[in-house]
Order: sequence, then structure tokens, then C-alpha cells
Amino acid sequence: MLPYYRRVHRKADGRELILYGLHPLEDPPLPEPALPYSPAPHLRYHPLRREWVVYAAHRQERTFLPPKEHCPLCPSREGGFPTEIPFSRFQVAVFDNRFPSLVPSPTPPPEGLPVPAGEALGRCEVVVYTEAHVGSLATLTEEERLLLAWVWRERYQALYALKGIQFVMPFENRGEAVGVTLHHPHGQIYAYPLVPPILERESQAFRERPVLLELLPHLEPYRVDQEEGFLAFVPPFARYPYEVWVVPWQRHPGLWTFSHEEMAAFARLLGRVVARYDALFGEAFPYVMVFHAAPLGEERTFHFHVEFYPPKRAKDKLKFLAGTELGAGTFVVDALPEETAKRLREVL
Amino acid sequence: MLPYYRRVHRKADGRELILYGLHPLEDPPLPEPALPYSPAPHLRYHPLRREWVVYAAHRQERTFLPPKEHCPLCPSREGGFPTEIPFSRFQVAVFDNRFPSLVPSPTPPPEGLPVPAGEALGRCEVVVYTEAHVGSLATLTEEERLLLAWVWRERYQALYALKGIQFVMPFENRGEAVGVTLHHPHGQIYAYPLVPPILERESQAFRERPVLLELLPHLEPYRVDQEEGFLAFVPPFARYPYEVWVVPWQRHPGLWTFSHEEMAAFARLLGRVVARYDALFGEAFPYVMVFHAAPLGEERTFHFHVEFYPPKRAKDKLKFLAGTELGAGTFVVDALPEETAKRLREVL
Repeated sequence: MLPYYRRVHRKADGRELILYGLHPLEDPPLPEPALPYSPAPHLRYHPLRREWVVYAAHRQERTFLPPKEHCPLCPSREGGFPTEIPFSRFQVAVFDNRFPSLVPSPTPPPEGLPVPAGEALGRCEVVVYTEAHVGSLATLTEEERLLLAWVWRERYQALYALKGIQFVMPFENRGEAVGVTLHHPHGQIYAYPLVPPILERESQAFRERPVLLELLPHLEPYRVDQEEGFLAFVPPFARYPYEVWVVPWQRHPGLWTFSHEEMAAFARLLGRVVARYDALFGEAFPYVMVFHAAPLGEERTFHFHVEFYPPKRAKDKLKFLAGTELGAGTFVVDALPEETAKRLREVL
Repeated sequence: MLPYYRRVHRKADGRELILYGLHPLEDPPLPEPALPYSPAPHLRYHPLRREWVVYAAHRQERTFLPPKEHCPLCPSREGGFPTEIPFSRFQVAVFDNRFPSLVPSPTPPPEGLPVPAGEALGRCEVVVYTEAHVGSLATLTEEERLLLAWVWRERYQALYALKGIQFVMPFENRGEAVGVTLHHPHGQIYAYPLVPPILERESQAFRERPVLLELLPHLEPYRVDQEEGFLAFVPPFARYPYEVWVVPWQRHPGLWTFSHEEMAAFARLLGRVVARYDALFGEAFPYVMVFHAAPLGEERTFHFHVEFYPPKRAKDKLKFLAGTELGAGTFVVDALPEETAKRLREVL
């Protein structure tokens, strides 16, 4: 296992901040203002789609594309702008989102709603990948990326251990095309009090058949890249032109059961997928990246995998989700997976 | 019933064009070039989400935001640019999309795919609302909007009568924020060879309970507008800040069972919802509008309704779908339906 240092800090407004480093983290904290923090999200049930919707009205106020010198995800400097991280050095930092959709101590939902309502129990964490303001999964050093993978693993274990949590999902929204409001390299983790609808469907599929184990031997035309024990490919049923999945050949419920070698191979392969994306059009490629690990109780059949959804269908064209995708749930794709896989395979 | 004229024309490339008018449509057709037309879409099955994906590679070539004088949805003029409609006058025009996702005579899917594949049987029609290049559902005259409603009704009946069609959906994508490639006021109709996943879920809900009949009496705080027999409201479980539904108080499987009075009230209310949207920020408000009528076989329990999904959460801010929405299926909304309903109610 990668040896790393870990330091827990309670922020001025009560939120938790955890620093991770390859070197000791012993600097005293810098001054930190206590910003107003009083989220009160709640859940409502959609009786036709049969899914829960989260209402988080305080998120209207969230920080929106601040100038570089006011980036809240950078380290703080003595006498400088106080960021979310009152320390001048770290490798990876994880803290509770100041504008969370799900919270550890939710308030009761409003009364008298005409549909079922519930408490928005859970956690929303921000994962800062590096203290450098510019970079990506592709530009981290191999050691930094491996540390990040171990941090994901630790957060999975910590969050699944919380009472009431049924699904934990690390993800990354990258680029203004997917609505990113902060450019500093970072991802997020949501810990849900429910199994979200897409994970319900996937769990059901895995309970019936080992879908990915059956599929993996037939993916050569769809291969984008590989590492010992892992395949990156454009699924033959991709819903986005440059969709890529990263899947272990052996079934794991989550990355918490990876061997040390698998952790390293997985981290390298993720970095290389992003490097391929960035090489494709010679610019930072926007995407949504989600980790699908087993929801609570599905550990015996679920097969962990990562899905990247890039919104671009060409350098200057976005694939918009519209009538058929949003209103019916049937995606129309104008590029064949075997062709986009070839492009991504040959670009590096 | 509104008396209207109807004229069927076979386009030079074999596609069908139907003109509708409040006045006779007797002009001879203008010259029309035969453009290349050889769509060959197919379907592939997504074994984890358990849904079909449509591949339509020819759609990469579709017309993208042409200048006004080359609008393919305008009437043709003698000696002018030949549009999709080789006539100089019409009120509403319906024709087969030149870049369809689903086609009447599909070719077999490629062989040797590692997932099930199928033929992309169906229809994709374009519905041009008016011969005027600028306008909207809100600016049509009452008579024009009523004609349009009768055209939707006719197309529903014609398309559900086709062999193999299981679901028909008129919809409108409006505004560049939802990826519109032509600005001329128009909508589309897809006739699917399957029941898309969102309609499957809604059908199941309606089979178990009359969800909308139960909900309607409790929606006063969510009301946006109304007409005799119809309510427009922001659902208390809205997934978009300014989502609006238009629902008949009586259960109808589709607008094909509306009375003549209901047709007129429905058309007026749709127009007024769009007028409210446009008044909200003083500009054309982007949205995706979908009609949810009963899929084949669900006529006894399904409750027809219209859903509008606007991507804006403020005048200058879009609600992006990202990690939690696209990757988990759980929507996070930063505005309360009762508040956005009040704004839409009071704006006119």
C-alpha cells in the first residue's frame, strides 16, 4: 500500500476537512473565516418516474467561475485570500461541500406537500486532486494519481460505514460544457440515502447475469486502452459518441477490493483515458465521469466500473440531450462506437 | 371540428410531405432538387441500463443553424432557394425528417455485434408550425394553434396505425441551449418501435394508481395557468426549476379523445404557457416540450399530459445535467416548485 499521511481538520463553520499527503502535514492552520453555512435540502418523490428528487435551494448561491486568484480550492497563503483549505500544502484534500445536496443532519421536509417527502440525509464531499490550480487526471504524477485512488477507496469505506447510506458515488464534472463552476482539478463524492434509479437498473441486470464478464471477451473492436487487469473501451451500446468505460476483468464490487497492483493499474489507466481525450481535439475535453460501485447489499453480483460521458460529438459540436433523450429516455447517437474507439485508440 | 384543407405531396427524394391549411392548397409545386437521402439507422441494446440506443450516423451531416435566407423550413419562392417545402403557402406542414433516427423501411443492423441489435423501424417527422420564419406557440393566432393541435391529433392516429409502432411522441426542442439546429418554429414527432424507458415507468405507475387524478386536486400552490378542463402547473416534484406540465382534469389516453372544446382549450393553454415563459426573462425561453400519451396497450390507464423541461435556472444560468443526474438518475434542483410556479403565475 502507498504510505500516505492524513490529517483531519474541523473548519471554522464545523465542516470536516481531510488532508492527504505523501509528506507529513504538520503546518499550523491559517486563519479561516466562518462563512454562513445553513443548508436545508429535502427530498420529494416523483410519482410517475418513481424516483426521488433533491431540493437544495441554497445551491443557487454557489460560487460561480471565480477568477483564478479567488479559487476556493487552492491552498491558502499567509495573508492571502482565505480558501476552503486553510493550509499552504497538501496533495489531496477532501471536505464537505459548502453547498451540499445531502447532509449528515437533515432538517425535516416541509409539511403538507401533495407527494411523499423525505430527509436529504447523506454527504456531499469535494475531492481536490492537487494543490496546483491547473491540471487534470492526466497531468498528475503517477504517485499523485495513486494517492488519489487510495483516497477514493478510503472515502468509499468511510461513507458506506455511515448509517442510512445506500450508495456512494465519486464523480467528476469537467469543463464548462457540463456546467462546471470551479476549474481547479477536483471531483465530488455523493453518499445517497437511497439507491438511485440508474443503479437500481444496473443492480437488477447484474443480479440476473454477469453482464460485464460476458461482454469483456468480445470488445477488441471497441478497445481504447488497457492495463494489466483492466480494459478501457467505448461500449458497443454507447449513449455518447466518445463514451468510455474502464472495467476490471475480474468482478470487483468496488475499488475497495482491488489488490495493490490493481489500484496502480486502475489509476494509470484512468489517467491515460483522460490524456487520450485531451489529445483528441488538442484541448481539455469536457466530460462527466462516474464511478459505479455496488450499492449496499449488491456486493455479491455488481461489477465495479467507471463511465465517462463526454458531451462533445465533434471539436465544435455538443451532443445535446433533448426530446427523445430527456422525454422518452431513448438516446440517438450519430457516431458508431467502433469508429470513436478507433479514434481514441490511435490518438496517442 | 375545425375545417381544414390537407394536401399530400411526394417529395423528389421519395419522402412524404403533408400540407395543412385553413384555405385551399391548390398551387402547383415549385421545382425541388433531389438531395441525397439514404439513412440507415439501427438499434443496439444497452444490457446494463436495459434500454435500446439508436445509431444514426448520417445525422452528423444535418443542417446546422443555416442563415435565415437558407432556412429549409420556410416556404419556397419561385426562383428562390429551394426549401424542404416546394410550395409558397401553407399553414402547417409535416414531412419525413431528412435525417431520421427511425425509418419506415429499415436496413438490417450490422452483424457480429456483441450485444443484441435491431432494426430502427419507425418514423421521424418534422412539424412546421407556420410559414413565418419567426414565431412560437405563443405568437400563433388562436386559429393557427388550433389547426396545429388537430394536426398533432391526425399524426397520432396515422402513426399509431402503422404496423410495429408502440409509442408516438410529438415534441419540440426550442433554443440553442437545447441544441436546436433550425430556428423556424417547428416541432418533431417520433414513432418508436418500442416503449421507451421513461414511458415504461410512467405506464407502470398509471397501471397501479391514477397518479394524476389523485394529484390534481392538491395543486393550487403549484398552479401556473388554467383553461376549462386543463391545469398548467409546476409539478411539486419538478426536476427542472421551471418545469411545467399541462394536464387534462379528465383522464384521456391521448389528445385523440379530446372533445372539440377540449382541443381548443388545450391549444390556448399551451400557447399561454409559452407566453409566460417568454415573459419571464423578456426573451425566447428555451425548452424541451414532450407529449406523453398512452403507449400501445396502455390506453385504459395512462393519463395524457405535456411536460416542458426548460434548461434555465436564471436569466443567465443554465441547469446542467451532470454527475448525479446523468450518472445516478437523481436530480438536484435549486429552486422550489411552489416559488417558480408563483413567478410564472404572476408574470402575465
